[in-house]
Parts: sequence; C-alpha cells; structure tokens
Amino acid sequence: MRAVDLIRKKRDSGEHSREEIDYLISAYTRGDIPDYQMAAWLMAVWIRGLSAMESAALTEAMLHSGEVVDHSYLPMKKVDKHSTGGVGDKTSLILAPIVAAGGLAVPMISGRGLGHTGGTLDKLEAIPGFNTFLTLAEFRRVLTECGMGLIGQTSEIAPADKKIYALRDATSTVENIGLICASIMSKKLAEGIDALVLDVKTGSGAFMSNEADAVRLAEVMVDTARRMGKKAVALITDMNQPLGRMAGHSNEVIESIEVLRGGGPADLRDLSVELSAWMFYLGERSKSVDEGRVLAKEMIRSGKALEKFRDCIRLQGGDACIVDDTSLLPGAKFAEEITSSKSGYVEATRCRDFGTALAMLEGGRGKKEDKIDHGVGLEFHKRIGDRVETGEKLVTIRYNSEAKLGDARNLIANGFQIGAKRPPAPPLIRRILGAQEHSV
Amino acid sequence: MRAVDLIRKKRDSGEHSREEIDYLISAYTRGDIPDYQMAAWLMAVWIRGLSAMESAALTEAMLHSGEVVDHSYLPMKKVDKHSTGGVGDKTSLILAPIVAAGGLAVPMISGRGLGHTGGTLDKLEAIPGFNTFLTLAEFRRVLTECGMGLIGQTSEIAPADKKIYALRDATSTVENIGLICASIMSKKLAEGIDALVLDVKTGSGAFMSNEADAVRLAEVMVDTARRMGKKAVALITDMNQPLGRMAGHSNEVIESIEVLRGGGPADLRDLSVELSAWMFYLGERSKSVDEGRVLAKEMIRSGKALEKFRDCIRLQGGDACIVDDTSLLPGAKFAEEITSSKSGYVEATRCRDFGTALAMLEGGRGKKEDKIDHGVGLEFHKRIGDRVETGEKLVTIRYNSEAKLGDARNLIANGFQIGAKRPPAPPLIRRILGAQEHSV
Repeated sequence: MRAVDLIRKKRDSGEHSREEIDYLISAYTRGDIPDYQMAAWLMAVWIRGLSAMESAALTEAMLHSGEVVDHSYLPMKKVDKHSTGGVGDKTSLILAPIVAAGGLAVPMISGRGLGHTGGTLDKLEAIPGFNTFLTLAEFRRVLTECGMGLIGQTSEIAPADKKIYALRDATSTVENIGLICASIMSKKLAEGIDALVLDVKTGSGAFMSNEADAVRLAEVMVDTARRMGKKAVALITDMNQPLGRMAGHSNEVIESIEVLRGGGPADLRDLSVELSAWMFYLGERSKSVDEGRVLAKEMIRSGKALEKFRDCIRLQGGDACIVDDTSLLPGAKFAEEITSSKSGYVEATRCRDFGTALAMLEGGRGKKEDKIDHGVGLEFHKRIGDRVETGEKLVTIRYNSEAKLGDARNLIANGFQIGAKRPPAPPLIRRILGAQEHSV
Repeated sequence: MRAVDLIRKKRDSGEHSREEIDYLISAYTRGDIPDYQMAAWLMAVWIRGLSAMESAALTEAMLHSGEVVDHSYLPMKKVDKHSTGGVGDKTSLILAPIVAAGGLAVPMISGRGLGHTGGTLDKLEAIPGFNTFLTLAEFRRVLTECGMGLIGQTSEIAPADKKIYALRDATSTVENIGLICASIMSKKLAEGIDALVLDVKTGSGAFMSNEADAVRLAEVMVDTARRMGKKAVALITDMNQPLGRMAGHSNEVIESIEVLRGGGPADLRDLSVELSAWMFYLGERSKSVDEGRVLAKEMIRSGKALEKFRDCIRLQGGDACIVDDTSLLPGAKFAEEITSSKSGYVEATRCRDFGTALAMLEGGRGKKEDKIDHGVGLEFHKRIGDRVETGEKLVTIRYNSEAKLGDARNLIANGFQIGAKRPPAPPLIRRILGAQEHSV
C-alpha cells in the first residue's frame, strides 16, 4: 500500500477499506508517512467527507494507536459523557458525582479549554491542590475508592489523535464531521467504558452553530460507538446562551456545588439530571430513563452526590473544604457591571463572544500555551425571553487585570440583542438521537 | 498573512488575490511555510481549482522565484515551443533548426522523459558528446553563434516549481489544469522569450487523453501568457498514435534528420512545419502563418535547417558526423518483429502502452533516477486506418536486454485494435486556440 495512492483515492471521492485506514494511521503514527502526505489526505477528507464505515474505521485505528485503559477490576459498569463544548458548560462536575453516587463508575478523561470554550480540567484546577495529572495506577486507585476520577489525556492514549490534531490545526482541516468524530471517539473509547452519553451543543455559543451539522455529527458518533459495540445516545442541546448563570473557573465550581446542594439555575440542574439519567439507563443501573431521572434527583437530595464530589477532590489531592467554603477558591479583585442601554426583551445572545471576552480577561486561552486566571468570571443576570429595563444589570464581570477590560466589556455589552417582543425561551434539549436502539 | 487562513480560503472555494499567491509562493520557496501546509493548499487547489487570474498570478510568482534569463543581447525575436508530451514526439529537434535557420532565436530549455513520454534532453544525449548541461554563459555563446540552443533546467530557474512539483508528485496533486499551467509556463517564460507556441496533445498517448481537458489547459496557458505580455497560441494535436514511425532516442534523432533532409513521415513533417510556421508568425518573421509555412519548407528544401542542426550539435560538444552517418548513434543488438494475429484495419492504438513498453526496455524512465539506453527503440509500420493482413509486421522492437522483453512485447501486441471496417484517419491538428488575437 502506498500513501500517494490512498490520497488519490480520497481525492477522487473513493471510499477507503478498513485496511487502508489502518495502514494510513499506523504508518503515520510511527513516522513512515510524512506530515505533508497526511496533510494532503486530510484536506481531501475535509472536502470529500468520510462515510459512516470510514469514520468508524478511523476512530478504531486511532483508538488502537495507543493504550485502551482496562477497568475490568471495577465490578460496576463504566459510563461517561462527552460534550462538544460551549460557554458555562460545567455539567461534568455535577453528573460525575451523581452517577458515581448512584453506583456506576465514571472514569472521565477530559480536555482543556481553548478559544471561547472552557475545559473540565481547567475548572477542576481552580480547586487548590486538585491534581489532574495522575498516573494510570493512581487513577485506578481513585476510581476504586470513590467510583469516579477526572484526569487529562496521557501520552499513552490515542497518540495518533494528538499528532493528527496538531496537523489539522495547522492545515485548516479541523471542522469536519468524520474527523471530529474520530478525534472525540478514539479518546473516549480509550477510557474503557461500556456506554457513552454525548451532549452535542448547537447555537451561537457552540462549535456547530447550525443544528443540522450538530445532528450529523451526533449521528456519526452514535453510529461509530455502536459499530464498536458500545452503547451511546446523543442529546442535541441548546447553546444559544450560556448554560447556567456562571462562566469562569472558580465561578463554575461554585455553581456546580450549588446544583449538587439541590439549588442552582434550572437549566443547568435539568440538563445535569437528564444526562445523568441517560448514563444510569445505558449503564443498566436503571430500567428506564425515567427511573434514572428519579435516581439522579435522589442522589442530589440525599447529599450523596455532594459527598462523592468531596471524596474525589480529597483523593485527587484537592482541598475539599472548598465544598463548604467556596471563598477558598481563587477570586477576582474587581467587579464591573454591564447594564442595558435599552428596555425590552432579550431576544438572542452572541454566546460565543461571552466566551471570547472571558478568555480576554485571562479566564480562558487564546493559544494552547496561555496561562489561565481561575479567579475571573462572568455572571449572567438575564436569559433569552427575560424582560430587561434600561440601566438594569445584564452581566457582572469579575476581573483582576484592566488590560483588556475595555475590549471584553464591549463584546459583552454588544452580546445581547434586545427587542420589543418577548421571544419564546429556546428549548434546552432539542433532540435525542440513538434512543430508539435502547428501547427506552 | 497566515498560511492557515489562505488554506481555509481555498478550501472554501475562495479566490486568492495576487498578493496572497505571492506570499504563499515566496514564503514556501524560502522555507517559511512548511511542506505540510503547502500540501494541504495544493489538495484544496486540486479539488476547488484556480481561476484564470489565479493561474496567471501563480505562474508569475513561480517565475519570479528565480532568474529570468536575459537574451536582450540577441537582435532577433526569441520564440519557443512547448509540447505536453507523448510517444514519438520529436518536433523540437526539427523545428528549432528550421526556426533558427529562418532568422529567429530559439533558446529552448527542455525537460527529461518520465513514464510513457520521452524528453528532448534525453533524445539529444543519444548524440555522442552532446552536452545539455551548459552554464548560462555557454548557452548565450551557442545562441549568439547559431541562434538556437537546447539545455536542461538550471537551479536558478523557477526554484519554486522544482520544490512544488516534488510535493505534488508525492501528494497526488499533479493533474490539475491551473497547477500544470503554472509549472509549464513559469519555466518557459523564464527563458526570456517573446512568443510561445504550445502543442497540447490529446488522445490515448497524451497526459490529457480527453480533448475537453486539453482545450481547457490550452486556454489557461494562452490566457496566462497573454496576461504576462507574451504572444502565444496553442495547437490541440492528436496523440492517439505515435507521432511519426519512430520512438526511442537514437531512433527519433534519425527520423528528425530524415525530416530535415526533406523526407520522413508525413504527419511528423506536417506538424513540424505547422509549429514552425506559427513560431515565424508570432516572432514577426512572417506576415502570416501561410508565409511562415512557406519559409519553414524553404529552410528544409535549402538544407539550411539541417546545417543549423549540425552547427548546434558541434557548438554543444556533440559529434556532428551523426547527421551524415546515423550509424554513429547508439544502436540495439537485437530486433524482434511484432506481427498481426488477424486481418483488418487498424482502428485505434493504446498509444500510452507503447511508451510504457519502451520504458520497460530501458528506452525510458519508470523513476526519475533510472538510466536510459539510448539505442533501444520501436518502429511502427502501421497507422490508424491502414490495412493489415495476418502475419504482417506491426512493430519492430530494437532491444539490448531480454529482461522485460516478454512484458513489453505483450503490451505492444495488445496495443493495436484491428477491426473489419476502415476508420477515418484521425485529424492531426484538432483546433488552434488564441489565433484570433493575432489576426492571422
């Protein structure tokens, strides 16, 4: 097999065999195919697309480029959730404790934030001492003791993805359904899980702003999981405005604790319960999603989920006292209020801009190498459909440096579209894909 | 400007500005853009295409990546011809002496053969002592003395093309009209010529087997030349069978001398005169193409063209005695006749296979590094439309090694399609493009 022939095949809209994809990925990973050939192939794939079979084969080849973690020492089913990301999306911090408290294992390997989106690892690192760099042996110990663990990707997991992702980033071949699917799923399936719940965001704050694209990605990911013998469903959820009231690292830990205490904003609570319910159901802990929902709520009401969160923080080296005293988290020295310049109803938000503004205040990363200030954050006072009067608060900015405050303030102030008529509030969960295969 | 943004633009079918193309080519040539980014861009270009403006800008950027030869010391107009290549295409060896004898300068910088096609440089090197590796100073001296010179590409000429061509070869991005145009035209226009006649081949032995593709390439090349202030026409000519009776290096030198002596096969003689006539006309040596045709025939009849060929061989270090005694050229030890297994008319040939068979006998290159045996060759006894009887000779193979004779013989024997009805002989010149702009 020769790379140049495989490039030609994809260039001419051909479909690769499993063997061809295995060859490309394994030869590229070991350095036998140079970057320039892989770059040409990636561009051909970006433009011509991958079939469902090819996406699954690519996922599997990338998965097997590294280690697949073995959690067979755990007696319960292993489940996880993956979100395509957005602004204020902190459900991982809530549902992992709920699901672990309910008796399943959640061996979560997460990513970091980039651009307008936050990352679970960064949020956890707002907790003093919390260590996301566990060895696999340490990770297994944490999982054994509390049923959940939250770490970053290790070099053993899907090395092909790491190499290919860097190349995609430099060659404008990132936004392609098949390639995104393989990148996400190769890492998630390397976790050694039995089932996966996908939260595919759509709207002005999501990578897939268009719902049709989000649905296509969800379909390919669910199909890929199924082809690899894993249970999966995908929820297409709204990201036309931040999830919950809080964005920023300390801010999001605080709001997650509020939900685990039975409070917090309704949208965040509802979505966390819904995702947990699906995890319980796919992990065969409940006989239905309804039953899973009841179990999730019970884990919050009883305080068991909060205890699980406390245990996990302690086992991963963090200061569990933050659960009772959130003032121990890093904070911001200054606050600035953004108020409305007119009266009316919030019709829409430029949700992506809120994430970008947060990154400008060092509460996110423009580039991979950027450091994060965990203390800065945004608090949103109005949601789509809310009435707002001139001079009323829209957002509270908590910041530590004035350097880019002006730019960030402008982005945020222009981020609200206010009109005369009250629009309907957007539905939080738009569609659920793959549910029928699990006969809900 | 960032390469990643320009890749994205072409990926999304955008049109580049001249500045963008200049940046890409100059930054790539000096090594500031890595191969993998150029590879992704080339694939996007291959699939999305280049506009006429982009093709011209790319040609110009590649041209100016190196030296443009200055022949202003020559008092006459400088003209050249470029052929897209085929089997038995030796017109350069004939028309350069005709046109130089007629009073124009022909500073021809040529390529080598690869795959099924031969190259002018390789054919000349069949002549003992002929040196195609002249310095530019030596080249100027030859041109000053005899008005023609035939050398290979130097490292000073269009270095961007050399680098990009190697990358295209490894990334399956060769066969694209805009990229082919830029590669050919950047080198040809670096010759410092006033006018160019293009011979774009179509048919079973051409790179562009489809006539529509050949016409598109011809249009883009003529347009590019015009945008750069050069006169150009393109002749779309037939390559459904070998040009002339001879293929192979010594063989083609011999046949070229036959034509320069006033003999040789009609198709080769006619095409050589036609191309020469256009060179005379575009080089303002004749007032019309008709007048150019008369002049070309006169240069043959008078023996002036043959004298010019002799002068050039001598000035470039070759043994000019071969003109009078072609047995001084390298020969072949063995001969094998391919005869027809049935009676009928030659309907078509697999012309490309003849070139491939010749390369198998070491009379061509499979890979760039391959050595050539100048003595081997093929002589074709039948043309499309000819009557052939069972057992009658189709081709004489002259060879030196039996190693691949069997494979070559099979390719050649299967290369003739013989049927019951006499087909019309294919017209040699299909179309002429760009002629109207020069008001013939």
